[in-house]
Parts: sequence; structure tokens; C-alpha cells
Amino acid sequence: MNIARVRELIQDAALKGAKLVVLPEMWNCPYSDDFSKFSEDFIDEKASPSFTMLSEVALSQGITVVGGSIPERCGDKLYNTCCIFGSDGKLIAKHRKLHLFDVDIPGDLYFKESDSYMPGDETTIVDTDVGRIGIGTCHDMCFPELAMLYGSRGARLICYPSAFNMSTGEALWELLQRARAVDNQLFVATCSPARNSSGSYMFWGHSTLVGPFGEIIATAGSEESIVIAEIDYSMIHLRRQSLPLATQRRDDVYQFVDLKLNA
Amino acid sequence: MNIARVRELIQDAALKGAKLVVLPEMWNCPYSDDFSKFSEDFIDEKASPSFTMLSEVALSQGITVVGGSIPERCGDKLYNTCCIFGSDGKLIAKHRKLHLFDVDIPGDLYFKESDSYMPGDETTIVDTDVGRIGIGTCHDMCFPELAMLYGSRGARLICYPSAFNMSTGEALWELLQRARAVDNQLFVATCSPARNSSGSYMFWGHSTLVGPFGEIIATAGSEESIVIAEIDYSMIHLRRQSLPLATQRRDDVYQFVDLKLNA
Repeated sequence: MNIARVRELIQDAALKGAKLVVLPEMWNCPYSDDFSKFSEDFIDEKASPSFTMLSEVALSQGITVVGGSIPERCGDKLYNTCCIFGSDGKLIAKHRKLHLFDVDIPGDLYFKESDSYMPGDETTIVDTDVGRIGIGTCHDMCFPELAMLYGSRGARLICYPSAFNMSTGEALWELLQRARAVDNQLFVATCSPARNSSGSYMFWGHSTLVGPFGEIIATAGSEESIVIAEIDYSMIHLRRQSLPLATQRRDDVYQFVDLKLNA
Repeated sequence: MNIARVRELIQDAALKGAKLVVLPEMWNCPYSDDFSKFSEDFIDEKASPSFTMLSEVALSQGITVVGGSIPERCGDKLYNTCCIFGSDGKLIAKHRKLHLFDVDIPGDLYFKESDSYMPGDETTIVDTDVGRIGIGTCHDMCFPELAMLYGSRGARLICYPSAFNMSTGEALWELLQRARAVDNQLFVATCSPARNSSGSYMFWGHSTLVGPFGEIIATAGSEESIVIAEIDYSMIHLRRQSLPLATQRRDDVYQFVDLKLNA
């Protein structure tokens, strides 16, 4: 059962010193199965085993948990939702995936997430024991705007629970997270499910931590593993001091509008 | 003399079938010398040997030339300027570098371009025999906004005449151009000076053509060379049809404002 296994892995990471744990997208269910079967309604927390486990383990270990994502049931709608828990075990925020993954590459990959899910409408930036973190889920990483928005609101880390497949994984996984980190001069952490040997949707794996110069600080292979790495936020200041991209922007030529700021 | 050598190389590329030639940044002068010594005033074209050569060779070969950049003198000001010539030899547009490269990485790299140059104030997108092209110069590539702006105005190719150094070259050169191509689902062409064996500012080289899926279609090493490659614009349509990023954007969450559109 995935929930018990994930609890063990989070405890293991905490024992190894982790203060923040990030899980992958859709960690409590198969990716291309009937998502509603594994969906949970967060209104009744006791009936939500994934939610309850994450809350308990965040509290018992005293860590921040970016809880990957699970199918959230809300009335007759489903959302691809990431719950973020503080070290007191309380829910800080939930992020409903903003950009659903609808793709049709003939002969390679067809997937229409919007057949199963509704998109979220809100951005998610949280203040935690380990700093200010922006949250995006998988395909959200394909949109530079979301990372720019989080960067401008002071995020020092963006976490992208994800489940890239073999096709987009090889081509884009490392590229996109490094680009988001470099363009916004902050840290990016991604977490993917381990490679599955069966199923029509095969995961790329390679959970990674990237620093503000696009450097890969730590990464996994395609198998199940815990990636432990240190984040030194002073690197952000150093980087921005050396190459002050923010002040070099030309707001007389282009402007970026964050419609959810103070909305 | 660089001007004669560049003329030969452009003619050579045209003989090999090139319909568009892109040159590197500051191809007519040393990079860290006194730029004003090599500056040209475009008002009197006959007194501008670089400008004249580019115009002549574009006409004689019947090709489009994105003329890298040279120091442009305008009154008592200098600009880092790219001239684009059509196959009739006429100047289509000039792009004055928008984002000047001011960097201070202790123990690694110090360069303050704004000591020598004024920044431009205009974006540059041109319709040519080989399609609609957006122009950026070197550090302009560090700003995703400019590429987004050109993409939204229908550019199918962005050309970045550049002169990345060894430090930013190794870390960022390939990453940035692939990210601009992928995020905007278009082609990106970069051109760098060949690696110099002396001088305080050593070039990275590696002129490259990237396709709309971030794939490297052709690239050079660090030595002087001509990179010849075919651009198949139908790949853009294919890519955007498979993964329609433009329609997946969330303009209820963020908006990007192009202040120079129809300005």
C-alpha cells in the first residue's frame, strides 16, 4: 500500500536530517487508471487517509511536507491537488494544478488530463519553517509565467511535484527546471515517481534539486530513492548580487502582471 | 582584417545554400578593447565599412543577413547594434541591445557593458524572405520576457548574436537558448565569436540552432566555422498542435504586457 510506504520514506528522510520533504505527483494511485477511485475529500479529514498520514508524519517528525499530489474530490469535481503541511502538522495550503496536461504527439504520447480533472484557479506560495516556497504541479513547470510570479513574490524555492513521462522527461525535465531556477535566480526542487515497469504512462524519474545558477545540486536515477540535499539560501543573494537580473529588466518594454497578487 | 574575412565567410555560406546568415556580437572589433575606436555612424553609410559590406553581400548573394553587432556611434553615444539586411541589400531594421551585460562574479568575471554603451529602447521583429524573425543580442537572451514578446507577435525564429564568455557559456549558453525555444515553441539561432586564445574576455563559441522542442539541430565547436542547417517551420505547427501551450496559458492568473506593440 503506497500510503504506508510513503510514510516510511518520509520518516526515513527526516531521520537523515531532512527539514522539508517533497513527494511526487499522484503518489497514492496509478497514473493512468481511474483517478476517482483513489480520490479523497479533504472536508472530512478522517476519511482522507493520504491527507491524515501527511499531517501526522509532518507533526511527528517536525518537518515541512510538500505532499506531492493526490486526486481531490470536491462535490462532483476532481482536482489534482498538492497539500502542504507545516511542522505542526497543520495544512498550510493546497495547490490545485493550474495547467492541466493535454497532449497529443502522434505515435508517441496521448494524454488528456482535463478529461479527469478540473484545473485550479489559485497560485500557491507558502511561508514555512524552511522559507518561502512556491508550488507548481508537473505541467505547471512548462509555464515560465508561474515561476516568474513566484519569484517576484519572494519565493526562494519552487517545488514541482511531477510525473513527466519518458518522452517529455528526456527532452524537457532537466531543461525546464534549470531554466526556471536560472531565470528567477532561486532554487527549484522536483520530485517524480520512480520508473514503473508496466502501465501505458511510464515515468521519467530523476527527482532533482537545482540551484540559482542552474547547477544540479542533487538528483536521483529512475529507481525509488530518497534524494537528500542541503539548500543554502545565501547562494541566491550572491547570485543576484553578481548578476542583478531583476534590476536589469526593462519594464518600459514589457511588464508582467500577477493577477492573483493580493487578490 | 575582420570585415574582409566576414565577407568571405558570408559568401561561402551563401554558396553552400544559406538563405539567412547570422553573425556574432561585436564581430568587427576586440571585445574588451576601446569599442569607440571601431564604432561606425550609420547616418553616413559610405563611412561605415561594416554596414556597407553587409549591405553589399546581402544584395550580391540575395540573402537575408542578421549582421551580428558592431559599435554604433550616434552623436556622442555608443550602442551595441545589430543591423538586419534584406536580400535587396536594404537595411530592414537595427536592434540596439536592450539589456546591457553588467556582471560582477568575484574571482571569476567582471564586465560592465554600461560603461561603454547606452541601451536600446526598442524591440526588433522583422519580416524577411525567410520568415518573421525576432532579434536579441547576447544578454537579451537572459530575459524570457523578450522571447515571449517575440513569440506572441508571431516570430518563428529568434536570432541572438552573442558573445558569451567561458563562465556563463558553460553554465548557461545551451540552457537559455533551448529554454527560449521550448517555452515559445519556435526556433532559436545563436552565433558566437570563435574562441580567442588571448584577451581578458574569452568566448565560449558553440553557435547553435535549436528547434521548437528544444532539440539541438546543429552546433559548432569553439573554433571558427560555418554552421549550415535547414529550418523546417512546419515543425512549429506540429509542436503547437501536439502541445498547445499558448491556449493552455492562464490569462486569468497572469498576463504579459508588450508595451512596444503598436507603440
